Amino acid sequence: MITIAVDAMGGDHAPRPEVEGSVLAAREFGVRILLVGQQNVVRAELAKHAAPNLPIEIVPASDVISMQDHPAQAFRRKKDSSVHVSARLVREAKADGLVSAGNTGAVMTVAKFLLGTLESVDRVALAAPFPNAKGGVSVLLDVGANVDSRPEHLVQFAIMGEVYYRATFGSKRPRVGLLSVGEEEIKGNELTREVYTRLKKSPVHFVGNVEGGDLFSGNVDVIVCDGFVGNIALKICEGLALQIFGLLGRSLKSSLVSQVGAMLSKGAFKGLKKTIDYTEYGGAPLLGVRGVCVIGHGRSNANAVKNAIRVAAGLARARMNEKIEQELSATAVLA
Amino acid sequence: MITIAVDAMGGDHAPRPEVEGSVLAAREFGVRILLVGQQNVVRAELAKHAAPNLPIEIVPASDVISMQDHPAQAFRRKKDSSVHVSARLVREAKADGLVSAGNTGAVMTVAKFLLGTLESVDRVALAAPFPNAKGGVSVLLDVGANVDSRPEHLVQFAIMGEVYYRATFGSKRPRVGLLSVGEEEIKGNELTREVYTRLKKSPVHFVGNVEGGDLFSGNVDVIVCDGFVGNIALKICEGLALQIFGLLGRSLKSSLVSQVGAMLSKGAFKGLKKTIDYTEYGGAPLLGVRGVCVIGHGRSNANAVKNAIRVAAGLARARMNEKIEQELSATAVLA
Repeated sequence: MITIAVDAMGGDHAPRPEVEGSVLAAREFGVRILLVGQQNVVRAELAKHAAPNLPIEIVPASDVISMQDHPAQAFRRKKDSSVHVSARLVREAKADGLVSAGNTGAVMTVAKFLLGTLESVDRVALAAPFPNAKGGVSVLLDVGANVDSRPEHLVQFAIMGEVYYRATFGSKRPRVGLLSVGEEEIKGNELTREVYTRLKKSPVHFVGNVEGGDLFSGNVDVIVCDGFVGNIALKICEGLALQIFGLLGRSLKSSLVSQVGAMLSKGAFKGLKKTIDYTEYGGAPLLGVRGVCVIGHGRSNANAVKNAIRVAAGLARARMNEKIEQELSATAVLA
Repeated sequence: MITIAVDAMGGDHAPRPEVEGSVLAAREFGVRILLVGQQNVVRAELAKHAAPNLPIEIVPASDVISMQDHPAQAFRRKKDSSVHVSARLVREAKADGLVSAGNTGAVMTVAKFLLGTLESVDRVALAAPFPNAKGGVSVLLDVGANVDSRPEHLVQFAIMGEVYYRATFGSKRPRVGLLSVGEEEIKGNELTREVYTRLKKSPVHFVGNVEGGDLFSGNVDVIVCDGFVGNIALKICEGLALQIFGLLGRSLKSSLVSQVGAMLSKGAFKGLKKTIDYTEYGGAPLLGVRGVCVIGHGRSNANAVKNAIRVAAGLARARMNEKIEQELSATAVLA
């Protein structure tokens, strides 16, 4: 049975969605859960659920990393945090993966240093899944584990992203694109032009440069970029979606007729919000660490936590890291 | 009287919106218009409008640059294009500025080479205005005139963006931010960290690093980034807006109740589309060229063309380029 350590103290509303999501996941997916956090708090929350026969255990951790904590400081000073303890459970093979909806920077730092990176990997990468216009999912990486990447790092991101995509979204040969400012090979900056020539020779199914709009077009499955660009892209998406919904809400309240219209359209808006809500897609995996680490949004609800556990268990079951090592060594031989 | 050369052949629906927008601008803003394009085509379109006493003249240009043309090739081969002729009118001081809704890359190339750059400017920059959550406008630059910029270029973008913002949106001391991956000074890549220290010492009202979501937050007026990042950001915004409206449309058609709701909410949706439609904001000025050059979206309607003419005339009237030269020389002395 796959075992996942769940950081019960991480998200904005912890431990409620973490515990409920864990109960749902244990029930629906047959996954064993180690709920990591302050014992009394987690136990009280777990008691609210009728879950006596589910494979859920509490593992104590005295410290809590908040969203305001500085990642490097939290790593050094809060050594008994729920994130640290979760990562140690993975390192000691007591869990196959960890899930946290906590401070993304802190989770990345703790996972990187306590788990270490895979042998063939120079830099880890955070991958963010997006719903696309064709009803599928496209994945952007790196969305912020690094700044100032070199060409070989982006090639590694492409390979790791492809293996993750295959394991999670069931495509046999995902299309991999390079985020740039035009489709032709000569378009882009110094970094992407070099990465283009390397990806052409790599084993991934490289479809060439893609542009910003292709995050949502569904024409490509895995989109590679450096972490600086990817993080800005991710934050723009969140910001613009909030802005459009805010404006829509205000517009809809602007007249009585619109208000009635809005009431009648409520189901449609809910459906839309669900489609573009990326917490539905199982969180963002940190690729390249030894073990499985999936990071959820701080606003994760129980459903998002459940889906993140599903993704983490799936990556462990698919032996993603072994495949990443294999593909990267094969690429190194080719280079 | 300010004179603006309007590329009548540029946009997706040219020359209809170009001619109508010119008639509206001549009528509303008291601007003299030189409509540049194939004489018969433009004359026939102009004849549809009752505009006998308006200061509109046709200037012939035999070539047309299409959206599919390669910018550098179009520049070299179509020397009598409406874009070339418009730029020459500005160079020869027969017009104070030019407006085109044509092939952005080609317009940038032609303007850069035929007009040249200001003496203190190393690199021109394309600036894109966005509506923000506070009901104002935020401007992002560079959105694609360059790739691989150096720190001094981004400092110049900041100063040019600030002067353009003051001239166009009436703010006396626009807040200038640097697009990065976190607010602290140490956050960012090699380029932005260096730019941060330089902007702190510059005469602009520098508010520090901003993140992707700040394109829409209204917390900052001018957002500086390199052209690679800016172009990706712009395309993401267009792509995501299309995606959300597409999904919303499909959701609203999914049931009879939603359909009725959608009908009643129609006014609200229109209002929203108008708010986020950046063609309302007068197009994107190419900053740093000798003269004024404003580039509209290919899909520009008459209203967008009219607004682009308003912005171009405003920049000429405000003597933007003189102010840019002054501020840049002052900064050079400080450095």
